[in-house]
Amino acid sequence: MANRLFIFDTTLRDGEQVPGCQLNSTEKIEVAKALETLGVDVIEAGFPISSPGDFQSVVAISKAVTWPTICALTRAVEKDIDAAAQALQYARRKRIHTGIGTSDYHIRYKFNSTREEILERAVACVKYAKRYVEDVEFYAEDAGRTDNEYLARVVEAVIHAGATVVNIPDTTGYCLPDEYGAKIRYLMEHVTCIDKAILSTHCHNDLGMATANTIQGVLNGARQVEVTINGIGERAGNTSLEEVAMIFKSHRETEIETNINSQNIYGISRMVSSLMHMPIQPNKAIVGRNAFAHSSGIHQDGVLKHRESYEIIDPKDVGIDDNAILLTARSGRAALKHRLQLLDVNLEQDELEKVYEDFLKLADNKRDINDDDVLMLVGKDRTTTQRIKLEYLQVSSGIGLKPVASICLSIAGVKLEAAASGNGPVDAAIKAVESLTQRTVTIQEFLIQALNKGRDDIGKVHIQVEYDGNIYYGFAAHTDIIAASVKAYIDAINKIPYN
Amino acid sequence: MANRLFIFDTTLRDGEQVPGCQLNSTEKIEVAKALETLGVDVIEAGFPISSPGDFQSVVAISKAVTWPTICALTRAVEKDIDAAAQALQYARRKRIHTGIGTSDYHIRYKFNSTREEILERAVACVKYAKRYVEDVEFYAEDAGRTDNEYLARVVEAVIHAGATVVNIPDTTGYCLPDEYGAKIRYLMEHVTCIDKAILSTHCHNDLGMATANTIQGVLNGARQVEVTINGIGERAGNTSLEEVAMIFKSHRETEIETNINSQNIYGISRMVSSLMHMPIQPNKAIVGRNAFAHSSGIHQDGVLKHRESYEIIDPKDVGIDDNAILLTARSGRAALKHRLQLLDVNLEQDELEKVYEDFLKLADNKRDINDDDVLMLVGKDRTTTQRIKLEYLQVSSGIGLKPVASICLSIAGVKLEAAASGNGPVDAAIKAVESLTQRTVTIQEFLIQALNKGRDDIGKVHIQVEYDGNIYYGFAAHTDIIAASVKAYIDAINKIPYN
Repeated sequence: MANRLFIFDTTLRDGEQVPGCQLNSTEKIEVAKALETLGVDVIEAGFPISSPGDFQSVVAISKAVTWPTICALTRAVEKDIDAAAQALQYARRKRIHTGIGTSDYHIRYKFNSTREEILERAVACVKYAKRYVEDVEFYAEDAGRTDNEYLARVVEAVIHAGATVVNIPDTTGYCLPDEYGAKIRYLMEHVTCIDKAILSTHCHNDLGMATANTIQGVLNGARQVEVTINGIGERAGNTSLEEVAMIFKSHRETEIETNINSQNIYGISRMVSSLMHMPIQPNKAIVGRNAFAHSSGIHQDGVLKHRESYEIIDPKDVGIDDNAILLTARSGRAALKHRLQLLDVNLEQDELEKVYEDFLKLADNKRDINDDDVLMLVGKDRTTTQRIKLEYLQVSSGIGLKPVASICLSIAGVKLEAAASGNGPVDAAIKAVESLTQRTVTIQEFLIQALNKGRDDIGKVHIQVEYDGNIYYGFAAHTDIIAASVKAYIDAINKIPYN
Repeated sequence: MANRLFIFDTTLRDGEQVPGCQLNSTEKIEVAKALETLGVDVIEAGFPISSPGDFQSVVAISKAVTWPTICALTRAVEKDIDAAAQALQYARRKRIHTGIGTSDYHIRYKFNSTREEILERAVACVKYAKRYVEDVEFYAEDAGRTDNEYLARVVEAVIHAGATVVNIPDTTGYCLPDEYGAKIRYLMEHVTCIDKAILSTHCHNDLGMATANTIQGVLNGARQVEVTINGIGERAGNTSLEEVAMIFKSHRETEIETNINSQNIYGISRMVSSLMHMPIQPNKAIVGRNAFAHSSGIHQDGVLKHRESYEIIDPKDVGIDDNAILLTARSGRAALKHRLQLLDVNLEQDELEKVYEDFLKLADNKRDINDDDVLMLVGKDRTTTQRIKLEYLQVSSGIGLKPVASICLSIAGVKLEAAASGNGPVDAAIKAVESLTQRTVTIQEFLIQALNKGRDDIGKVHIQVEYDGNIYYGFAAHTDIIAASVKAYIDAINKIPYN
C-alpha cells in the first residue's frame, strides 16, 4: 500500500453550495489557482448540470489551472454526465465524479427502489462516464449508513466497470471514528479487485468528528481524502484540508505523505474566508486567530522556557509569522516580564512583583491587556509617542445619502484635517485618513464583532493590513463600531515603521 | 464498568482564560446557573491563586449553585491548595483539582527535575488537598506525551494517596484518536487500584480532534470528560460539551449516559458566545447557524422526501426551533416548490419549471435568495405589503460627538419621522425605530460580518429578537453597516404578527 495520500479539494463544489458562500467565476478562478499553488491533487470545480453559472465555472477553471485534475460532479443520470464531460473539455487532466445513494434510507425513501436496481444504476453510470474520460470516481452516497456487505458488492462492481476512485461518504456525519475506520478496512479486505482503484474518504462534521473519521479512513487504507479549506460545507461542514495536512505532517510515524505546501495554508484560508464571507472562529484548529496564542500563566511560562513544551506545530509551517503570547488575568510573571522586555523595559525582580500586582488588578477588569496598558503600568505611556493619533471624527451616512466623514489627525504632533466620501461610513473615514497619511496599504482582513446581548455593548474590530510585503495588525474596541473601525485602522498603520 | 459519564465543565476556567473572554463575577454566576440547568456534574469555577478576581468568583459561584460539584484548580503547590480550599468554603459539594506535568518535556524543561521527584510531588499535593476535601482530582499535565508505563505509576500512586478522579490531559492536542484511546486502555489495564477512582479526559483541539479523542477515551474506560461550551479554550480550544453530549445521545449503542438536558444546549451556547464575545462559526457542529441548514438540491430533495435520509439529530433536541431549507443556486425544484408552498403559492409543474429557470439565473448572481426574491419571481412582491418600511435614514456619529439618528418609517402606509441619540450609531437608529414601532423587543443576537478583502464590500447583519416569548430573525446586507443593521432590525420586527 503506497503512502502517498491524494488531496481532493471540494471547496468550490461542496463548500460553495453553502448559503451565502457562492462565488462568481473570477473568484472561483482565484481560489482554484491558490489551490494549485497549495499543491492539491484534485479540484472538484462544480456540478455542471445544476446551473448555467456552475457549468461555465467548470469551463473557466479547466482553462485556468494546469497541474491538478479537474473534477465535475454528476448524479447517476446520463444528461448530468454529458454536461460534465462538456464542461471538462478544456481540462488537461479530467475526472467525472458520479454516483448514487446506497443506504437503505436512500434506496427506499429517495429512490423508491431496490438494492439490485441501485447496483445496476451504479455500474451503468460508471460505464457511461467511461465513454468520455479515463478517470471516473464513483460515490456511494450515505455509505456511512450503508450495510458493509452490500457496500462491498457495489464497490467491487463499479471497479469492474472502470471506476478509478471509489468515494465512501459519511454523508450525514454520523459515524464514530472506529466505525468509519472499520468500514474502510472491511472494503480493503473484502473487495477482491481493490488494488485496481483508490478508496476516498468524504466526511461531514455534524458531530464534530469529520477530521478524525478521515484520519481513521486513511490509517485503514483510504488514499484520497475529500476536504475543504477551513472545513466549510453544508450544515456543520466538511473535513478541513488544513487539519488533515498538518496531522500527517506532524505525525511522521504514520508515514503518510501529501503534496501540500503547508506554508501556503494560512494565505488560502484567509482568501476563502474573505471571498465566501465565512468568518473563522478564533479557536478554529490551525487557522483560527487564537490557534497559536498562549494566554494562561502555566502555559506561558512553559512556552517561554522551552517552546516544545506546548507547541506541536511551528506557526511558520502554516504561514503564520508570529506566535503571540497574550496577556490576561491568567498570565504569570514570566509572560509580563517577556512582554516588557519586548517593549524595551527591563525591571528588577521586586519592581516586577509590584507591577505584576497592579497588572492583576487591571486584568480582572479589562479583557485584553495591550502594550499601551502594560506601558502605563510601568509609568510610560506610548500613546503620547504614537505618530498618528485620531483627534476628531465625524461621520454621516444613511439611506439615500452619500456617506461622508470628516477627521482630524495629529501626525507627529501636527494637526491635519480631511474629509472624504465613500460607499459606506467606514470606507469614507478610512479614505479621509489615507488622504493624510499617504500610505497605500491593502486591507487583508477586516472583522467587526458586535456579538452581544444588547445593541449597546462594545464593538470590537480586528484589522490586518499589508504594506510593502509586511503584515500589520490593528485592534480597537468602542461602543460606536465606526469609531472602533477607524481606531483599529490607525492602530495598524502606526505599527508600520516610519522612515 | 458503569455507563454513567460525568460531565466536567471548564468553560469558566480553561475557557475563560482565553484573551478577550474574561467574565466578571455576575456573568460567571449567570453561566454557572445555566450549567446547573443544563445538568453538568462538575463546574470548574476558577484558579483561585491566580488573581483576586478569580478567587472571589469561585466563592460567588459556590454560593450560587446547588447541585453540581464546584471544582477549583491549583498547581502542586501548598499555597495554591490553601487558596482553593478557602475559595470553596461555601460549596455544597467541593473538589480540589491539583496536579503537575508528567511528560519528559515538562519534567526536564519546565521543572528541571526527575521522574522520581515529580512522582513524590504528585503524591504530596494529593495528600495535602485531602486534608481539606474528600474529593480530590489529580491532573497529569501533558499526559498525552507522557510515557505510558511511568504515567501508570503516577496514576497508581495518586489513587493510593486518595485521588478520586485522575485527569489524563492531551495538553498539546497532539494525540491521534487511537493513540489516546490506547493510553486510557493501558491505564485501565495496568493500574491495579483503578476501580477506586475515575479516569477523566481533557483534550485540546490543536489538530481538530479533541472530540474524537474524548470519545475514544470514554469508549476505552474514562468516565469523566472535561469540556467547554462551544469548545472555547486556549489556542484551538477544548472539547465541545455539545458535541460529546449529542454523540452519546445519538449513538445509543455505546450505552453511555450523561445527565445533560440537551434542549438547553442552544440557549447556553448563545449565552456563552455573547458574554465572552466569541463568535460561533456558521459551520460549527451542533450549535453553528448552518448546523441544520440544508442547501444543495440533492440533499434538499432527500430531506423533503424523508427527513431521516439526511438528518441524524432533530434540531429540537438541542433547543433549535426551525430547520431551515435555504435556497441557493444548488437548490432543486423540490426545495423551491416547498418554499413557495410555505409562502402560500402553489404552482403547476409547468409553471414551476419556468420559475425554476428564472430562479437559477437569479441565484447565479445573488448569494442568498430570500422570500422576497422568491415572491418577485412569481410576480408577487411582499415588500409592498410589509407593514414597516424604512423610507429614510440619516446617522451622524464620531469621536467627541453624541451619535444621533433621524429616520422616516412607513408603517401600514403612514409615514412617520423620529430622531434619537444613543451610545453608538446603531443604538441611536434602533431607538428612533422603537419610538415609532412601540414594540419592546429584546435583542438576543446581533452579528455584523464585514469580513472582506477591501473595506467597500457588503456588510451582512444577522439579528435575533425576542418578543412575547417568541424568537424572530432578521437579515440584511448593505455596503453601509449601519444601514444594514437597521434594515435587519426592521426585517425581524416585520415578522412579529400584528394584532
